[in-house]
Amino acid sequence: MSEATRADGRTAGQMRPVTIERGWSAQAEGSALISFGGTRVLCTASFTPGVPRWLAGKGTGWVTAEYSMLPRSTNERMQRESVKGRIGGRTHEISRLIGRSLRAVIDTRALGENTLVIDCDVLQADGGTRTASITGAYVALADAVEWARAQGHIAKKAQPLTDSVAAVSVGIVDGAALSDLAYVEDSRAETDMNVVVTGSGDFVEVQGTAEGAPFRRAELDALLDLALASAGELAELQRAVLAEGR
Amino acid sequence: MSEATRADGRTAGQMRPVTIERGWSAQAEGSALISFGGTRVLCTASFTPGVPRWLAGKGTGWVTAEYSMLPRSTNERMQRESVKGRIGGRTHEISRLIGRSLRAVIDTRALGENTLVIDCDVLQADGGTRTASITGAYVALADAVEWARAQGHIAKKAQPLTDSVAAVSVGIVDGAALSDLAYVEDSRAETDMNVVVTGSGDFVEVQGTAEGAPFRRAELDALLDLALASAGELAELQRAVLAEGR
Amino acid sequence: MSEATRADGRTAGQMRPVTIERGWSAQAEGSALISFGGTRVLCTASFTPGVPRWLAGKGTGWVTAEYSMLPRSTNERMQRESVKGRIGGRTHEISRLIGRSLRAVIDTRALGENTLVIDCDVLQADGGTRTASITGAYVALADAVEWARAQGHIAKKAQPLTDSVAAVSVGIVDGAALSDLAYVEDSRAETDMNVVVTGSGDFVEVQGTAEGAPFRRAELDALLDLALASAGELAELQRAVLAEGR
Amino acid sequence: MSEATRADGRTAGQMRPVTIERGWSAQAEGSALISFGGTRVLCTASFTPGVPRWLAGKGTGWVTAEYSMLPRSTNERMQRESVKGRIGGRTHEISRLIGRSLRAVIDTRALGENTLVIDCDVLQADGGTRTASITGAYVALADAVEWARAQGHIAKKAQPLTDSVAAVSVGIVDGAALSDLAYVEDSRAETDMNVVVTGSGDFVEVQGTAEGAPFRRAELDALLDLALASAGELAELQRAVLAEGR
Amino acid sequence: MSEATRADGRTAGQMRPVTIERGWSAQAEGSALISFGGTRVLCTASFTPGVPRWLAGKGTGWVTAEYSMLPRSTNERMQRESVKGRIGGRTHEISRLIGRSLRAVIDTRALGENTLVIDCDVLQADGGTRTASITGAYVALADAVEWARAQGHIAKKAQPLTDSVAAVSVGIVDGAALSDLAYVEDSRAETDMNVVVTGSGDFVEVQGTAEGAPFRRAELDALLDLALASAGELAELQRAVLAEGR
Amino acid sequence: MSEATRADGRTAGQMRPVTIERGWSAQAEGSALISFGGTRVLCTASFTPGVPRWLAGKGTGWVTAEYSMLPRSTNERMQRESVKGRIGGRTHEISRLIGRSLRAVIDTRALGENTLVIDCDVLQADGGTRTASITGAYVALADAVEWARAQGHIAKKAQPLTDSVAAVSVGIVDGAALSDLAYVEDSRAETDMNVVVTGSGDFVEVQGTAEGAPFRRAELDALLDLALASAGELAELQRAVLAEGR
Repeated sequence: MSEATRADGRTAGQMRPVTIERGWSAQAEGSALISFGGTRVLCTASFTPGVPRWLAGKGTGWVTAEYSMLPRSTNERMQRESVKGRIGGRTHEISRLIGRSLRAVIDTRALGENTLVIDCDVLQADGGTRTASITGAYVALADAVEWARAQGHIAKKAQPLTDSVAAVSVGIVDGAALSDLAYVEDSRAETDMNVVVTGSGDFVEVQGTAEGAPFRRAELDALLDLALASAGELAELQRAVLAEGR
Repeated sequence: MSEATRADGRTAGQMRPVTIERGWSAQAEGSALISFGGTRVLCTASFTPGVPRWLAGKGTGWVTAEYSMLPRSTNERMQRESVKGRIGGRTHEISRLIGRSLRAVIDTRALGENTLVIDCDVLQADGGTRTASITGAYVALADAVEWARAQGHIAKKAQPLTDSVAAVSVGIVDGAALSDLAYVEDSRAETDMNVVVTGSGDFVEVQGTAEGAPFRRAELDALLDLALASAGELAELQRAVLAEGR
Repeated sequence: MSEATRADGRTAGQMRPVTIERGWSAQAEGSALISFGGTRVLCTASFTPGVPRWLAGKGTGWVTAEYSMLPRSTNERMQRESVKGRIGGRTHEISRLIGRSLRAVIDTRALGENTLVIDCDVLQADGGTRTASITGAYVALADAVEWARAQGHIAKKAQPLTDSVAAVSVGIVDGAALSDLAYVEDSRAETDMNVVVTGSGDFVEVQGTAEGAPFRRAELDALLDLALASAGELAELQRAVLAEGR
Repeated sequence: MSEATRADGRTAGQMRPVTIERGWSAQAEGSALISFGGTRVLCTASFTPGVPRWLAGKGTGWVTAEYSMLPRSTNERMQRESVKGRIGGRTHEISRLIGRSLRAVIDTRALGENTLVIDCDVLQADGGTRTASITGAYVALADAVEWARAQGHIAKKAQPLTDSVAAVSVGIVDGAALSDLAYVEDSRAETDMNVVVTGSGDFVEVQGTAEGAPFRRAELDALLDLALASAGELAELQRAVLAEGR
Repeated sequence: MSEATRADGRTAGQMRPVTIERGWSAQAEGSALISFGGTRVLCTASFTPGVPRWLAGKGTGWVTAEYSMLPRSTNERMQRESVKGRIGGRTHEISRLIGRSLRAVIDTRALGENTLVIDCDVLQADGGTRTASITGAYVALADAVEWARAQGHIAKKAQPLTDSVAAVSVGIVDGAALSDLAYVEDSRAETDMNVVVTGSGDFVEVQGTAEGAPFRRAELDALLDLALASAGELAELQRAVLAEGR
Repeated sequence: MSEATRADGRTAGQMRPVTIERGWSAQAEGSALISFGGTRVLCTASFTPGVPRWLAGKGTGWVTAEYSMLPRSTNERMQRESVKGRIGGRTHEISRLIGRSLRAVIDTRALGENTLVIDCDVLQADGGTRTASITGAYVALADAVEWARAQGHIAKKAQPLTDSVAAVSVGIVDGAALSDLAYVEDSRAETDMNVVVTGSGDFVEVQGTAEGAPFRRAELDALLDLALASAGELAELQRAVLAEGR
C-alpha cells in the first residue's frame, strides 16, 4: 500500500479536527455538538423514568437512538423522511447501529427501570456522520446518566456505564488505508469500514464493505490497526471533555 | 390593561435578544442561525434551476418552505414525524405560513424559472419558533438570491425581492399586551397573535386566536401596535446583517 | 375604496342567501345542512360519554372537529385524501380552526367527561366552506348538547355553551372590501380574511392573508367592520333556527 | 320458507321507497342523490377527456368508481379512512364492485379516450349502501355521457351505454327470502346476497355469502328470483327518471 | 354451449392435478403446501390462546386469514405491498373471503377463547390462487385444531370443525362452462365464478362476475353444477389427506 | 477457547446440511430454493430489459434485492410488514446487504442496460436467513444472466459475473467460535458476525456485532478463519449445482 496524499493534507492515520461542545442544548438531560471536520452532529440524550411496556417489571433499563439528517445538511437538498412518510433503509440502519453501540457500554440493570433516548441530528454532513454520532452520543449519554443520578433516579453507587465508546470510519482509497474519511474520500473508497471501539480497545462493531473490488485479509488488518489507533484518540478526547465541570 | 411585570424583566413591548448568524451552513446557497432568546432556528435556502412540472414554461419561479422541530428541541422529547409516518397539522400549518410570507415579498417573474426551498429546523424551542423562522428565512433567502445572481441564474438587473419580511408573536397575558412571547408567557396567553410585516410596515399575515376568552377590538388594536413596532426593529436588524459582506 | 359591482348583484357587505336545515341526519345527536349560496356543508355532532385517555379523571369534556371535502364538491374532481393515504395541510388547518372556534364557546367543565366530535363534510364548494362549516357546526353542537342533557349525560342545570359562534370570510377584491366571498371572488382577492365571532360580538379568530400585495391597516379595519356586521346576521339566524322545536 | 313479517310492514319481495334526485350537484357532469329508505347516497360522475397513461393510444375509454361513507352516516361514528391513513378492505371491495358493474354496460370503444370517475358517498346508511350506490351511479353516469356528447367529446352517434344496470340486496332472514334488506334485517341475515342486473335482466354480479349456516341450492334460487324482480323495478325507475328533461 | 378443447387437454369439468403436502412447515401448528396445477400456495395455521381484546370474555374464538402473493409468483414481477406501504383491494378482498369461508365451518363457541390465523402465501400463481388457498387452508386449520386439542387448549370432546370446506373457480370461456380455470383461461373468461362449498355440498360463497357480456340464468346454473362436482372431489381429497397420520 | 458441544452434534467449524434446489420456480428467469438446515429461502431473479430512469443512458445495468420473511416462517407468527404499512429496519438492512453482495460480483457495464431484481423470501427460519439468502441469490442470479444471454439481451461474449459470492454467519457462543449458527445458537451468541466472501476467497462484507461483551482482536481473527473455510465449501456447492444442465 502506498502512502496517501490526502486532499486536506492529512497523513493516512490522521483524523480531521474533532471538537465536542458539551451541553449545547439547554433542555436535554445531556447533549453534545460534535464536529469531525465539516461534519457537525447535534446529539441529545433524553432521560425518562420508566421503560416501554414490554420491559416493565424486569428491573432493567432501555437505551435507544435515532439518527436523522437535516434536508440541507448535504450538498444537494434531500427530501425529508417525514414528507416521504417513511424512514429509509440507511436511516434505520444507522439508528440501530448507534443504539447497539451505546448499549454495549451500558449495564441496563444498574440503569434501573429508566429509559434513555439519544437523538443524533446531522446539521452538516461531510463524511463520517455515523461515527461522529456514536462518539458524540456517548458524551450526551454520560451527562444524562449523571443528571439522573443527581436527581435520584439512579442509585448513588450504581455504575450504568461500563466503559466509553467511540467510532471511526476507515477505508481504502487508491490502494491506501486511511482514517476518518471525508466525503470526497468516502465516495471514492474501494473499501469502507466503520469500527466501533470501547475505551478499553475492544470491538463493539466491525462493518466493512467492499464498494469496488473485494478486499483481502491483509487490507482488513491494516484498516483495523488504523481504526484502533484513531478510536484511542477519540476516547482520550471524550475523557478530557467529560472531566471538565458541566 | 395593566403594565406587565415579565418573568425575564422585559417591558411589554420589548423583544428578547435577537441574533442572526448569517452563512452558518457551508453548503446551502443561503443560511442563517437565528435566535429569539432561547429559541434557535437553523434556516437554509436551497436554490435549484428549474421549477416543478406544473409550473414549467410559465416564466415564473417558485418559493416554498418546510418547518420542523428536532425531537428534543422542547422540554419533553417529542416523537419524530418521520417515525410517526406523517406530518402533523401544526407542522403543515407553519410550513405553509412561512412559504406564503416569503412569497409575499418575491416577484416570481423576476426570479425566473428557478426554485428556492427554505428549510427552518428548530434546534431549540422557547416560544416564537414560527416568527423566528420567518425572520431568519428571509435572510437565507436574500443570500440565496444573491448567490443565484452571481452564478448567472438570475439576471443582473432582476429584483426578485420586492421588500423584506419579518414576524413577531404578540399576545395578551394577564390582561396585558406583550411582544415576543417566551414559552412560559405563550402557554398562559389569553390571546395569541402572529403578525407578519414587510419592511415597509404593511401586513402579510395577521393570525389572532383567543386561547381563553374571546378578545375585544381594542385588544386587537393594542396587539397590532406592538407587532408593528417590534417588526420594525427586526427589519432594521435584517438590513444590518445583510449589509455586511457575506 | 370603490363600491363593488359584484357578479351576483350583491352589495359589498351583503352575504349570499344562508339557509340552515337543522336535524338533516336521522342518526347524529345533532346535525345541520348549511348553505352559504352554492356552498353546502353537512355538519354532524357525535356525542360519546367519556373522554380520550389523556383527559380522563380531570372532570372536563372534549370537543374536536374534522373537515373534509367530497372529491367532486369542486369544479374539478380532487383526489380523496383516503386514497392519497394522508391528510393535506389545508384540511388539517381547517379542522383545527373549527375545533378551536367551537371550544371558545364551550365550558368543558360544565360539559363533564363527555366527548363531542363535529364532522363538517363539504358536499358542494363555492367559497367560504370553512366559515359555513363553523356556523353550521355550532347548530349541530347545540342540538347535541341538548340531546345529552335530555339523556341525562349532562346535568339539568349545566350550561356548557357560553355563547354562540359564527364565521364569515371577508376580503379585498379590486380594491373593495367585500363580505362572504364566493369562489370567483375569493380566487381574485388581494387580501382574504376569515373572522370567527361570538354571538356577543367578540373575536375568536382573525386570520388575514395578503394573497397579492401586503395590506394596510386601514384595509384591515374596513374588513373587520364588515365581518362583525355579517357575523351578527349569522348569529341572529342561528338563534332563530335553534328557537324552533327540533 | 315461511312468509316474513317485516319490521317496517313490507312483504318479502317489496323494496323500501326508492327516490332518485337527479342533478343534485351543480358542478358534476352527472349526479344523483338516491335513497333506498333511510339509506342516502350522493353519486357524482366526473368526466375528463383523456385516459390514464397505461391506456393511452388504444382508442378506449375508462370508467372507475370510488365508494366512501361519511363518518357519521352510521349509528356510531366511524373513524375516517383519511385519518387512519389507509382504505379498509370493505371500501376497496365495494369500490371495485361498483366499477365493474358500470363497466359491464359501457362500450369503452364507443366512449373514446375519455375517463369517467363515479363517486358514491354515503350520507346516511341503513343497509343496501352498495346496491343503492350502483343504482344511483348508473343515473349519474348516463347524464355525464349525455353531457360529454353535447360538448362534443363523444361522437353524436356513439352509444357508449349498452344497457342500464341496477342492484339489489336479498337475503334469508329467519328462514325467509327477503328483498332490499334494511340494516336491522341485514345484521340478522343467515345469507346475504348482492345481485347486479342489467336492464335486460341478465346478471353482472352475483355475490352470495353465508353469514350463518351454509345455504342450499333451493335457497339460492329463491333469492335470485326476488333479486330479478326487484332489479326490474329499479330499471323501470331509472328509465323514468332519465326520461325527464335534465 | 359447445364442448371445450382445453389447452392442457382437460375436459370441461376436469380439474388440474391437485396435490396437498400436509405438514410442510416445521413450525406452524398446522400447514399445507397445496398445488392446483402450476398454482402453489403455502398455507400455515397459527394457534394462539386468547382472543383479540374486542372479543375477550365472550367465550368464543376467532379465525382470520391473510393472503399474499410473492412478488415473483407471477409471470411479471409485481411490487411488494410492504414496499408500496399499503395492501391493495384485491388482496384485502381475498383475505376476507378466505376468513369468511373458514369461519363458516368453525363453531367458535366450541373453539373457546382461542385464535387461529391462517396465512396463505402464493409461491407460484397460475389461476385459482384463492380457491387453492381456501382448500389448503382447511387442511392447515384442521391440523391446528387437533394440535390445540392435544395440547389441552381445546376440550377433548369439543368439535370446533362442523364440516370441511373447499373452493373452485369455474367460468365461461368461448361459450363453454369450464372448471378450475388456469391463468390463460381465466384471462379470457367471459364470466368468472368462485364457489366455496362445504363437504356436505352446501354453499358458503358464490361470487360470479361478468368479465365481458352479462350472463344468463342458464349459464349460472351450468356453472354451479360444475362447481359442486369439483368441490366434491376436493372434499374427498381433503378427507384422504387428513386420514393419514400426521 | 474451548471446543463446542453443539446441540445438533456438529463440530465448531461444521455447517448444517446445505441443499440448493435450482430452478424451483417455473416463471422466474432464475431461481433457487436453498436450505441451511431448517432455514429455507426461495430466491428468484427477475430480469427486465432497461434500467430505472436515473441510470438510463449510462450504459450500465442495475442489480437490487428484496428480502422478506413469511409471517409464520418463525416460531411465533410475526405481523406482515404489508399490514403494518411499513418495512422494518432489519428487513431494509438485509435487503441492502444482499444487493451490495451481489453487485460486488457483477460488472454492470457487461450487464448492459438491464435490470435484475432478486427476491429472497424466507419460507422457514432457523438462523442464518441472510447468509442463506445471499448464497441462494447468487445461483438465481447466475441462471438469470444465462437466460438473458440466451435471449440476446446480453452479448454472447459479455461476462457480467466476475466471481461467485456466498455468505456464512459465525459467532462466539459460550466462548467458542462456531460456524453457521442455528437459531438457538444465534440467540445466545456473545458475538455474531456475518461474512460475505467471493469464490476467490476475498471479503465483500464483514459485519461483526458484540451482542454481549465487546470482542477482542484474537476472537475476530478466529471467526474470520471459520468464515473463510465455510464460505469455501459453499462456493464449491454453488459451482457443482450450476455445472448441472438447467
